[in-house]
Amino acid sequence: MTGPNDRFLRACRRQKVDTTPVWLMRQAGRYLSEYRAVRERAGGFLTLCKTPELACEVTLQPVDLLGVDAAILFSDILVPLEAMGISLAFEEGEGPRLEPVRTETALEKLHVPDPVAETGFVMEAVRVIRRELSGRVPLVGFAGAPFTLASYAVEGGTSRNFRHVLGWMYGEPGSFRRLLDLMADTVILYLKAQVEAGAQAFQLFDTWAGVLSRRHYREFALPATAKVFGALKGLGVPMILYVNGSAPFLEEMALAGADVISVDWRVSLGEARERTRGAFALQGNLDPMALYAPRAVLQSEVARVLAEAPPAVLVFNLGHGVLPDTPRESAVALVEMVHAMGRKEI
Amino acid sequence: MTGPNDRFLRACRRQKVDTTPVWLMRQAGRYLSEYRAVRERAGGFLTLCKTPELACEVTLQPVDLLGVDAAILFSDILVPLEAMGISLAFEEGEGPRLEPVRTETALEKLHVPDPVAETGFVMEAVRVIRRELSGRVPLVGFAGAPFTLASYAVEGGTSRNFRHVLGWMYGEPGSFRRLLDLMADTVILYLKAQVEAGAQAFQLFDTWAGVLSRRHYREFALPATAKVFGALKGLGVPMILYVNGSAPFLEEMALAGADVISVDWRVSLGEARERTRGAFALQGNLDPMALYAPRAVLQSEVARVLAEAPPAVLVFNLGHGVLPDTPRESAVALVEMVHAMGRKEI
Repeated sequence: MTGPNDRFLRACRRQKVDTTPVWLMRQAGRYLSEYRAVRERAGGFLTLCKTPELACEVTLQPVDLLGVDAAILFSDILVPLEAMGISLAFEEGEGPRLEPVRTETALEKLHVPDPVAETGFVMEAVRVIRRELSGRVPLVGFAGAPFTLASYAVEGGTSRNFRHVLGWMYGEPGSFRRLLDLMADTVILYLKAQVEAGAQAFQLFDTWAGVLSRRHYREFALPATAKVFGALKGLGVPMILYVNGSAPFLEEMALAGADVISVDWRVSLGEARERTRGAFALQGNLDPMALYAPRAVLQSEVARVLAEAPPAVLVFNLGHGVLPDTPRESAVALVEMVHAMGRKEI
Repeated sequence: MTGPNDRFLRACRRQKVDTTPVWLMRQAGRYLSEYRAVRERAGGFLTLCKTPELACEVTLQPVDLLGVDAAILFSDILVPLEAMGISLAFEEGEGPRLEPVRTETALEKLHVPDPVAETGFVMEAVRVIRRELSGRVPLVGFAGAPFTLASYAVEGGTSRNFRHVLGWMYGEPGSFRRLLDLMADTVILYLKAQVEAGAQAFQLFDTWAGVLSRRHYREFALPATAKVFGALKGLGVPMILYVNGSAPFLEEMALAGADVISVDWRVSLGEARERTRGAFALQGNLDPMALYAPRAVLQSEVARVLAEAPPAVLVFNLGHGVLPDTPRESAVALVEMVHAMGRKEI
């Protein structure tokens, strides 16, 4: 390959590529000993997120070690919530803990943060990463989708059954829409600032929307998500929408205004293509569990995903994040396989 | 209503009913103070399951307190696993802990239990419950579906990502099919014994199958489930298949051989009907979260489910189990609403 690696951006735009680009959700993570070393050095997870040089270091690791075709900003989905005024802590070995937002009074106290003034470390990380990448691969920014951010804020962390956030949705739909709207406004400014700092694409993660019925996705999550994409369309960078558990409402996902639809492993890319009217680049959707399988099985799974991908251009990825105890050699092998077996369209 | 309440059985068989029957998954549970009192008296959860008189007492509570149209055997989905030779404990405030089955050697040590000799307390509970119900409403038996039982056995309890069971599936599909087959054989004998003891219908719970891709559901979970229904068809009692997270593979669920398709809240009953070729009675699918909503919202949700139910006969239920802190008055109101607003077809 001569010149900068632009496979990822080209595939997002449904332009011809020399082979299928690949990156992995959570490609900078605990399955890499190099990541664990930096994390250790940082002392805490939030410190790692808030120190641009360290965030840059772990962002670049999978580019160097795996040969992926895109870097994704290392940060945490909850960073903007903290900036909104919700206290946040990570206990070692546990998930995040937030001060739960469960009343209209608590909602009124939140503000839409100025992303540069209040999360400047993220924008600085973007600048440092772009400089250190020096064009090798594009940098993808990201944020949580409004419903997922609202879920974290209301539940105060991860949840088994999302009782509080769904209770609010059922009980007080009006103020729940205000909460989603506040999240959307926050995400709009936050992603715009990332792009202005140098992010060349971004992904909106709707990790928890799969708990919603199709009707509620349409009524609540979708309008807030569509507001984000509508506001950021003019930036001209590829916009990716990932929803975990999107099988009930793939048709609705297609209405959000994203350029790339990113799906989990539960439905085939062929079905995803069909149900989204063939109008998008697709990203996905290898089951992260396939990385634990023997090499021959992994190879046949990769071949299957590539074969299921419709004639539109594909960004190869997992259907969910890399798990912490994934064998790194499998991740390395995966990237090699995709490049070797991917679509050559020159 | 004169004579015994047979709405539930009639609806399962798609026969006319005087109004829509309703029962609730986990209708005997912690949201009832009467349940908590018996649980306290029993000392431990497993003791409650293994003492037929106490299991009978909690089974009947929702019939008396809510007026549901079916009783469901109170037991635990893991009881047959313990009988297979997998040690089981419930720690207070935690989920179940099983000795994980993760090797072929461990698999070879398991046996298909004789349900009468090894889980006789369940069959005795069925007999006691039938006697105490004395025809008021039918009694539904149940078991876990093979994939869900295999998941519990391999993970050793509940799981966030099902890494071990899915790792086995990817890595050693042959022996994983043997594991599923062993679960199917166990379930067949176990449910047959329940019906012989007096259960008038049964439900197979595939609580975790929603983690599977459509392809893997078809290749692994479905054949084992279909084996169970195929073997028990001759018993002549209505057979219900419930899968949580079935949106990716509703079409495949329709191939399992069940009489009643029970779905979660994520897709509408109209869509479920369409995607299962209109050939089944349907059960579901109110979001359990609607029970936390104000009464007027609950009422409109109930009306919506009733309206979405296709012309086939409906067994009203939740899309998942009643949560422990559900307001009991909401459950009582729900049953009243369904009976009042349900289809009258006399």
